[in-house]
Amino acid sequence: MKNDQMFNAHHSPVGAFSSFTLGYPGPSGGFGCELGKPADQHIFIGYESASERGVFNTFPFYEESSDAEEDFVLEDQGDHLEKAKLRCIETSEIEREFTPCIDRWAHNEFEFTIFSPTHAIPNPATASEEAMKTVLIPAVFAQLRLDNRKGDHDRRIFFGFQPSNFQAHIRENWNLCSKGIRSLCVGRDYGVASNAEGSNTAIHFTADTILGEPDRDRFHFGNGTIGLLDAVVPKGEIVTIPLVMAFHRSGLVTSGIECSYYYNRFFPNLDSVILHGLEHFESYRASAQTENEKWHRETLTDSQRFHIAHSIRSYYGSTQLLDRAGEPMWVVNEGEYRMINTLDLTIDQLFFEMKQNPWTTRNVLEHYLELYSYRDQVFSPGEPDAYHPGGLSFSHDMGVANCFTPQGESCYEISGLKGCFSYMTHEELVNWLCCALVYLEQTGDEAWAHQYLQTFKDLFESLCNRDHSDSEQRNGIMGMDSSRTKGGAEITTYDSLDPSLGRSRGNCYLATKTWSVYLGLEKLFRKYGNNDDADLCLSQSTRIMKTLLGAVREDGSLPSSIEPGAETSILPVIEGLVYAWFNGRKDVFEPSSGYVEFISMMRVHLEQVLKPGCCMFDDGSWRLTTGNTNSWLSKIYLCQFVARELLAFPENHPAMKSDEAHENWLKSPSNAYWAWGDQFYAGELKGSRYYPRGVTSVLWLDEKQHC
Amino acid sequence: MKNDQMFNAHHSPVGAFSSFTLGYPGPSGGFGCELGKPADQHIFIGYESASERGVFNTFPFYEESSDAEEDFVLEDQGDHLEKAKLRCIETSEIEREFTPCIDRWAHNEFEFTIFSPTHAIPNPATASEEAMKTVLIPAVFAQLRLDNRKGDHDRRIFFGFQPSNFQAHIRENWNLCSKGIRSLCVGRDYGVASNAEGSNTAIHFTADTILGEPDRDRFHFGNGTIGLLDAVVPKGEIVTIPLVMAFHRSGLVTSGIECSYYYNRFFPNLDSVILHGLEHFESYRASAQTENEKWHRETLTDSQRFHIAHSIRSYYGSTQLLDRAGEPMWVVNEGEYRMINTLDLTIDQLFFEMKQNPWTTRNVLEHYLELYSYRDQVFSPGEPDAYHPGGLSFSHDMGVANCFTPQGESCYEISGLKGCFSYMTHEELVNWLCCALVYLEQTGDEAWAHQYLQTFKDLFESLCNRDHSDSEQRNGIMGMDSSRTKGGAEITTYDSLDPSLGRSRGNCYLATKTWSVYLGLEKLFRKYGNNDDADLCLSQSTRIMKTLLGAVREDGSLPSSIEPGAETSILPVIEGLVYAWFNGRKDVFEPSSGYVEFISMMRVHLEQVLKPGCCMFDDGSWRLTTGNTNSWLSKIYLCQFVARELLAFPENHPAMKSDEAHENWLKSPSNAYWAWGDQFYAGELKGSRYYPRGVTSVLWLDEKQHC
Repeated sequence: MKNDQMFNAHHSPVGAFSSFTLGYPGPSGGFGCELGKPADQHIFIGYESASERGVFNTFPFYEESSDAEEDFVLEDQGDHLEKAKLRCIETSEIEREFTPCIDRWAHNEFEFTIFSPTHAIPNPATASEEAMKTVLIPAVFAQLRLDNRKGDHDRRIFFGFQPSNFQAHIRENWNLCSKGIRSLCVGRDYGVASNAEGSNTAIHFTADTILGEPDRDRFHFGNGTIGLLDAVVPKGEIVTIPLVMAFHRSGLVTSGIECSYYYNRFFPNLDSVILHGLEHFESYRASAQTENEKWHRETLTDSQRFHIAHSIRSYYGSTQLLDRAGEPMWVVNEGEYRMINTLDLTIDQLFFEMKQNPWTTRNVLEHYLELYSYRDQVFSPGEPDAYHPGGLSFSHDMGVANCFTPQGESCYEISGLKGCFSYMTHEELVNWLCCALVYLEQTGDEAWAHQYLQTFKDLFESLCNRDHSDSEQRNGIMGMDSSRTKGGAEITTYDSLDPSLGRSRGNCYLATKTWSVYLGLEKLFRKYGNNDDADLCLSQSTRIMKTLLGAVREDGSLPSSIEPGAETSILPVIEGLVYAWFNGRKDVFEPSSGYVEFISMMRVHLEQVLKPGCCMFDDGSWRLTTGNTNSWLSKIYLCQFVARELLAFPENHPAMKSDEAHENWLKSPSNAYWAWGDQFYAGELKGSRYYPRGVTSVLWLDEKQHC
Repeated sequence: MKNDQMFNAHHSPVGAFSSFTLGYPGPSGGFGCELGKPADQHIFIGYESASERGVFNTFPFYEESSDAEEDFVLEDQGDHLEKAKLRCIETSEIEREFTPCIDRWAHNEFEFTIFSPTHAIPNPATASEEAMKTVLIPAVFAQLRLDNRKGDHDRRIFFGFQPSNFQAHIRENWNLCSKGIRSLCVGRDYGVASNAEGSNTAIHFTADTILGEPDRDRFHFGNGTIGLLDAVVPKGEIVTIPLVMAFHRSGLVTSGIECSYYYNRFFPNLDSVILHGLEHFESYRASAQTENEKWHRETLTDSQRFHIAHSIRSYYGSTQLLDRAGEPMWVVNEGEYRMINTLDLTIDQLFFEMKQNPWTTRNVLEHYLELYSYRDQVFSPGEPDAYHPGGLSFSHDMGVANCFTPQGESCYEISGLKGCFSYMTHEELVNWLCCALVYLEQTGDEAWAHQYLQTFKDLFESLCNRDHSDSEQRNGIMGMDSSRTKGGAEITTYDSLDPSLGRSRGNCYLATKTWSVYLGLEKLFRKYGNNDDADLCLSQSTRIMKTLLGAVREDGSLPSSIEPGAETSILPVIEGLVYAWFNGRKDVFEPSSGYVEFISMMRVHLEQVLKPGCCMFDDGSWRLTTGNTNSWLSKIYLCQFVARELLAFPENHPAMKSDEAHENWLKSPSNAYWAWGDQFYAGELKGSRYYPRGVTSVLWLDEKQHC
């Protein structure tokens, strides 16, 4: 294996906000629950050498650490335990096979494989208990395998770990022993278990002490800090040891809105997770293979497959299905920041959820409406004290790290700012509408459309009011800021960039997204007989087209903003086109459409900016803006799809070969600890790490023959 | 205040395994639940300067830390917040008043005080719900106070903190706002709250940002990492702001044996703790004063008062009252090691619990009998394969860090050893009996004695069997090791010392303790008409006396062991006398007693060893053994009591002036982070830190006029 294979990846249950992270050298992964980062545990996975007895080849996911025994044994008292030798396997000798649901490390005749099937979650309103239970099990699955057919002695294989010594302690779970199960658990929170005949567990202060001890029953030493589960592989045999890696939290786990994990309905405690996981191990292992096929297309390059696998894994690590007073509440936490259901991530994750479980999108949208919507007024930057009618919009998020914020408030937004942490009123309004319109088009959920017609009308009005308070002066594009900013200025999701992408007012990125919303609303209103509003929508989308066409620069590209002085060029001008594509308005991309000039301009814009020295780095990777080297991979994936599929960007364009450059970003040793990450400064990961947003990559599965 | 006042101390509820630790400079304390160490949070406590507006004098329990905002704001976007200036108060300017239940820091006209009353826990079998609720509230109480009568402007005072970013997040608890309560909570786990009129809360990334912001409602910023609760003190006024610092864990919290916190019966969640705490704040504050008086004697020196206060605080930080299927289960966790009810600590904590709540001792003893007793065989070191009848004894502990071990097994003991982590079969047998006999004598609980008469008989037999398998060859002192050691050798509680104190067999420390047990059993058996066994007890205690008298060296002192080659001298030969003193056998200390020669020898022994170059360090502090510089403060306290009270050691002896030297151990900057600690290597704390065992100091309260 090349050394660039040593990257952390999530291996996560569905909706358990948990991850067994592994892949980066050193104590860099392990069992994490509700964390914004890897758990930094020492993980011991290995096998006894064929040539040297008592020497154990061990994958490099640990390091020689201080011996906790020293905290107790302050004097040498003459007890010297035999220690085995752990030999750390060279990364260059490891083979890794990395797919969305199966992650396999091999060294010589030894393999360690993790299975984490990406089951779609059935709609809880209609699904059977058994179907829900199967999918929501808070566990991933793994196996140790040694081919000892050529060996001339019995050899031991093992999986072990050292939890961080923060609260709970590692223990052998004796309650399960009577059922033939050996396990190492940390408190009531997580653990690993096997029902393989002959498997054993032991705990002591170091792995070499455990492996050096021939009496397998000597070290049931609860005071120890490291546990190993091991088994003997007789010479001449192949042995495979199944492992379930289980997580569990019971009771209420959130505040503000009080929720428990939905899986508690089926799994009251950790033991029940282990039992079910082992009983159905074969089925879960098989479904990892089946699920892998869901994300496979022959036309994809190896690099694209890597991006898809890695981003899907990181997504699931942030997912959390809650039980709110008996009703399901879907949450995607925001990676390292752990903000709850950040709405400007929901819109990027939309495409993935549409494929997997569209009801979760509806669930999030409804919770935003019920709990995290508000009404504001708006003002023009020249007259900050003159308030005009605004309307309904949504907060940026629902809270952070299991703490729900009060109704209508995010944990993120602060008044009086013009940059990061300012309000995203217009951005989130557009995001909610984009999600809702795509949901309706993709699912045909007419009952839902009917139920929320008035809401759509309210939101449409709110959108128009943010263009200009005087309807005569509207140009389709946001011109008024929310009163919630208290004299500040709204920002977009691109909060950590300079104003080229960060500022909402006049922003061409936001304009295109808004254009898609008006197109979708037009179709919706017309379908339900509200032609007046449909006509107004048409008028607004046309205004946007005209305004942007009027802003085109000499070279045919658009500036980042229609406001004076915006000189930067940005890629995400094209981003918003994708919502029209999926919300039922593919017609506007037809040559016969009234928007042909608009689409054509977009293609020219992209051609003009997507080149070295502009929105492309020297290695061919994509740069979102000339104003900044901060480039977001999730958005690049999306824009790649738009370029190829919507704008028929030429396949032989140098920028179409960028996937490997982006792969290098993720795999770079300075970045690879963080699993999938989003915000790269010229390839250096600085923000949005351990992040769920990369599933925009699944858009590539819908491409025709471009790639 | 002198700089030696900057030591961490616990401020803990009763039985909640929680601590608000404070006192060591830097981010070294804060809210800890179930931790074996301080929580290392930044704590912000301070007030606005009288002379400089916008400058806030802040106690030194924080440090300038990296600004978490940098994780988000990767570009300067022109938003510059006004920051206040935090001026760290010089430690030399601080006055600290440190007592068992009240800990007060003062700087000029500002005070911060923490109240943690040491309520005795009523017996749950008979106590009213209200009485239990009052005592078991998982909270401590504090207040901020500024005297602004001479001030010429309104000034702000504040309390704030930054939790470690491990799992849950800091939040303002809006549910309590409607009740007039402002609070800062971390998830559902802990928090601080006030109902003072005009108090406010805010959250941001740094304290200076919050204090620099005049708009008190701008920073309800859930994404922030630091929260401050503050209030304005108008010029000309004195304002006192009450604070409740609350902890809570719901549901099952332990494994192996499944328990919840007993306080859940009265407090279902964190909010209920806060509400009750604030409603009864005055009562709790007053009882801190009342409870302080319980630990006060005019005759004690300042240094002795310090030891008593500090050790009681550390004790409560490790206490945990659990609810095991409806029944109370008392646990004292072992400080940094967090072992559950370590039986060789129970015996040291016995004196404290006898004063406070004797039922907890009975509770622990019964759980040992029911769950953590076992029967073994014994062998003589010369014939390790020849097993003889042993008997009933007890495991070293019940588990660790909320993980209960299987029945009859400790988390500590390992077979095949002769030093640390070997079995403590004889030690724990003696410990259980010491506790039980003292409990019976002090409480007169005849029903309990009656219920367990057969158990006492079994334990007595077990004890005799460990002397010698051939009753003719018995000398009173342990001569046989437990089969559980599998050829190893048993150890005493002094596990980290050399064999002088660590080895059980022949040990003179253990011999004296065993002597007290036989005396107590003799009285018990005789009382209940079992004169045969009483006579055997008398015979055994007489044998111990004769054996030890026969072992006396030329200078009149005893060696550490009766086994050949034991040259070291140890202080704890006298330790075991204390159990005869409290188990109803004060008669043996009378001049008319048959043991007069024995007691006299003990006095001579102490005189001979308690001097410089032997069991005393150069500064007058006590050294447990000449074989080692590792000296345990809990045991020193106990031996001090024995020396003065039981052996009438002369008050003008240089060793009677050692308390200040021991105080220096605890207050030394290299030790003071760890609150109260036990194992000092010539004054350097190396083990048993953050430890509950120091409450042997309360024995001093029972002394006559010696000190």
